Amino acid sequence: MHSDRIRLSSLQDRIISADEAAALIKDGMTVGLSGFGCAGDAKAVPMALVERARRKPLKINVITGASIGNRLDGLMAEAGLLARRMPFQADAALRKAINAGEVMFVDQHLSELVELMRHGQLENPDIAIIEAAAITEQGHIVPTASVGNSASLALSARQVIVEINPACSAHWEGLHDIYIPEKRPGRKPIPLVNADDRIGTTAIAVDPQRIAGIVISDKVDSPSTIVPPDAETQAIADHLIAFFEQEVEAGRLSSSLAPLQVGVGSIANAVMCGLIEAPFRDLVQYSEVLQDSTFELIDAGKLKFASGSAITLSAECGKRVFGDLEKYKDRLVLRPQEISNHPELARRLGIIGINTALECDIYGNVNSTHVCGTRMMNGIGGSGDFARNVHMAIFVTKSIAKDGAISSVVPMVSHVDHIGQDVDVLVTEQGLADLRGLAPRERARVIIANCVHPAYREAMNTYFEAACARGGHTPHLLDEALSWHVNLEARGHMLAR
Amino acid sequence: MHSDRIRLSSLQDRIISADEAAALIKDGMTVGLSGFGCAGDAKAVPMALVERARRKPLKINVITGASIGNRLDGLMAEAGLLARRMPFQADAALRKAINAGEVMFVDQHLSELVELMRHGQLENPDIAIIEAAAITEQGHIVPTASVGNSASLALSARQVIVEINPACSAHWEGLHDIYIPEKRPGRKPIPLVNADDRIGTTAIAVDPQRIAGIVISDKVDSPSTIVPPDAETQAIADHLIAFFEQEVEAGRLSSSLAPLQVGVGSIANAVMCGLIEAPFRDLVQYSEVLQDSTFELIDAGKLKFASGSAITLSAECGKRVFGDLEKYKDRLVLRPQEISNHPELARRLGIIGINTALECDIYGNVNSTHVCGTRMMNGIGGSGDFARNVHMAIFVTKSIAKDGAISSVVPMVSHVDHIGQDVDVLVTEQGLADLRGLAPRERARVIIANCVHPAYREAMNTYFEAACARGGHTPHLLDEALSWHVNLEARGHMLAR
Repeated sequence: MHSDRIRLSSLQDRIISADEAAALIKDGMTVGLSGFGCAGDAKAVPMALVERARRKPLKINVITGASIGNRLDGLMAEAGLLARRMPFQADAALRKAINAGEVMFVDQHLSELVELMRHGQLENPDIAIIEAAAITEQGHIVPTASVGNSASLALSARQVIVEINPACSAHWEGLHDIYIPEKRPGRKPIPLVNADDRIGTTAIAVDPQRIAGIVISDKVDSPSTIVPPDAETQAIADHLIAFFEQEVEAGRLSSSLAPLQVGVGSIANAVMCGLIEAPFRDLVQYSEVLQDSTFELIDAGKLKFASGSAITLSAECGKRVFGDLEKYKDRLVLRPQEISNHPELARRLGIIGINTALECDIYGNVNSTHVCGTRMMNGIGGSGDFARNVHMAIFVTKSIAKDGAISSVVPMVSHVDHIGQDVDVLVTEQGLADLRGLAPRERARVIIANCVHPAYREAMNTYFEAACARGGHTPHLLDEALSWHVNLEARGHMLAR
Repeated sequence: MHSDRIRLSSLQDRIISADEAAALIKDGMTVGLSGFGCAGDAKAVPMALVERARRKPLKINVITGASIGNRLDGLMAEAGLLARRMPFQADAALRKAINAGEVMFVDQHLSELVELMRHGQLENPDIAIIEAAAITEQGHIVPTASVGNSASLALSARQVIVEINPACSAHWEGLHDIYIPEKRPGRKPIPLVNADDRIGTTAIAVDPQRIAGIVISDKVDSPSTIVPPDAETQAIADHLIAFFEQEVEAGRLSSSLAPLQVGVGSIANAVMCGLIEAPFRDLVQYSEVLQDSTFELIDAGKLKFASGSAITLSAECGKRVFGDLEKYKDRLVLRPQEISNHPELARRLGIIGINTALECDIYGNVNSTHVCGTRMMNGIGGSGDFARNVHMAIFVTKSIAKDGAISSVVPMVSHVDHIGQDVDVLVTEQGLADLRGLAPRERARVIIANCVHPAYREAMNTYFEAACARGGHTPHLLDEALSWHVNLEARGHMLAR
């Protein structure tokens, strides 16, 4: 049974049901799940756990790569299954439980989780549940649409449950590049020099003895919802592409730019789509989640190679790409998120990182996560791995939200994820602020002139001038600095009086 | 003349006076100065520039490694010489000019400046002025007590002025390790695997043609003022050492801990001195500025090797060490600050980083730079290079300041330099908060219980409980979050009403 998918014959008799697998998990355990960007998630066993928790209270700690699909995070939260959750999530129901203080959410840099685990600063998982396209003759695990933290979770857990997914293309095999940094001290340099280098193995080399069960499940990944560019996201893309053209003109970037890291979301999608028509060529991506735009750029002959940790596609694009994976295979690699996001590589490769801000302030500090400084949206994800260490860190956002009740540019951000030093360029549909080499007062003038929505510009200038009159390197009026957020919460508009 | 110090004879006739060298600098130029942590500064030519600017207005942009000594930053600021200054400073008069908005200060991660320059994101200096112990037969520059940014500044400037300092020991030669990362793309891994590896050259390989003048100056570096441990700094050291002992006990650290990075200042000094009596051995330092404590630990047989970018000593310790440099030579190396602080190496070596916070908040965000969110103290320095990428980021501060008018732990920091994700351990004289793997609400409870001064604990608990009642992942009351700072500014005490 499934002998093409379970090629080590001694493992054939470990096939069990999802319920039997779920029964291996005890109250209080820490469980590692495959899944990153809603791709390659373990599906059947977590769902069996949800059903079990609905019948009888059960609390576990869940570690993944990043967000997982099929509403699983929400179902786990609603069933009261989650005591702790790390390092990222993007589910509305789980978000609600986190903000209610019901689930302890540990929001981490995505490259760091397994590094902390490797050196005992986080506990190893008791059990890892990993979706696989196949198990090799050696008993090694071939992942599907993501690597995420799967390799290190599987290698460090006491037991491993494999979810073999026959609905996944057999052509996933060979597409992954599993490299695990050595323990310290004595760790060698990561030998990756170009985005398309292969430095590891194509499967996760677990000891087959530790595979406690194999579950067959043909449930597929959740497709992504791609919002097509609107006038604002298109304007953001246009500003950024014009800026890249100037940088090429000035000799500061080549015509193939630099390896691109692009966050998830509609603005990032618009920017990537904008590159199809732009005068750059032989582009390379060194990113986390590869989305529709990656394949559109490949098909358009613009993108030479894409390295990621996961592939998340719309239903339509998924049909085209996953149905013909061979066609793209030599232009793709999926790596552990520790490697896709590694500070060593972000700096060495000289990545251009493009990520979305929730809000930014006049000095270029960026909030990526907390609504009004308090309520978590998703998590910092990989943005901190990249922003600190890349060649150029770009943050994008629309200048206003909620029909103008919210200005995304504020006097002082209500929560800081990215400090001014890590923000080189800010872009809204109003324009682009090139902050490189500027002091705070200079940054403020450039941001106000280029990025703030006209409806907020006068109020912002008034704040800034009053703050400058009081003095300081980074002038602020502390009694007013967060008043826009206080107004919003109390009166529904940032400038309400 | 000085043929032992200027060994390429064709350069002998380039000796000029400091005034003649200063005359090469034109209004509006960008000048790179050697100097890091008040060590190895260019001295005579900057002083001649100050005198020139006192006679006739002159504005230049000044780039250094970090802080410079002999009050030069203050004298330059007072003479109106500075238009722009980067990447760090620690002078009272310059600080005043920065906070008045008179000098544009660009506060940068210390590893980044020359990287930005290398790829055209900052302009190269017109002239670099570098203190040297000698010029070799090849015309290469042997630095003195710091490397800092000297190598890249000298290599990228159009012209170089060398300040030969015959007062410096000839034994500096051989102590430096100059390695410059390649341009991207195609950059190779930095081949450093252990803190004591040598990967570069012992002198800066400038083309002697670009040496526009050589000035002889025997002015010495400013000695550091070491504040001996007091009851609070001793308590901080004791908490931290007890924590390290637990980590060794639990098998998470070895008995030689991990390469130590230690910031400048009296708390850091107390911690290092505490290691003399602690039960660890074969310690290694991989740090920026090596201070008295490095040599005390070497003399005590506790420290095997120290890698830094500069050596800054008290007058007394300086006499002992600089007078007998040979004795320490095989246990020391000075590197460019790009390498001493490189993210790639901080992560690979698994450094323990110990830096000082100005204030921190209940969620573990750290302000290292801005008094009341507005007034710059010194700069972020290397703390951001380390905190994001090290094995363990530790921040230390006394729990109160100004006789209790200020709590160093506040509801919300008024400026963020280090986000919660980058702060693993917080220590005050009250105790130690181990924040690893905790969610924000858990972090707050641990910080309040362990780090807050008793005089502020009740007010802090009141704030935190009220914020939790309102909800959120990181509960805050935005209308009160900065009220402690507002109180301090308006009424002289954080809890004044």
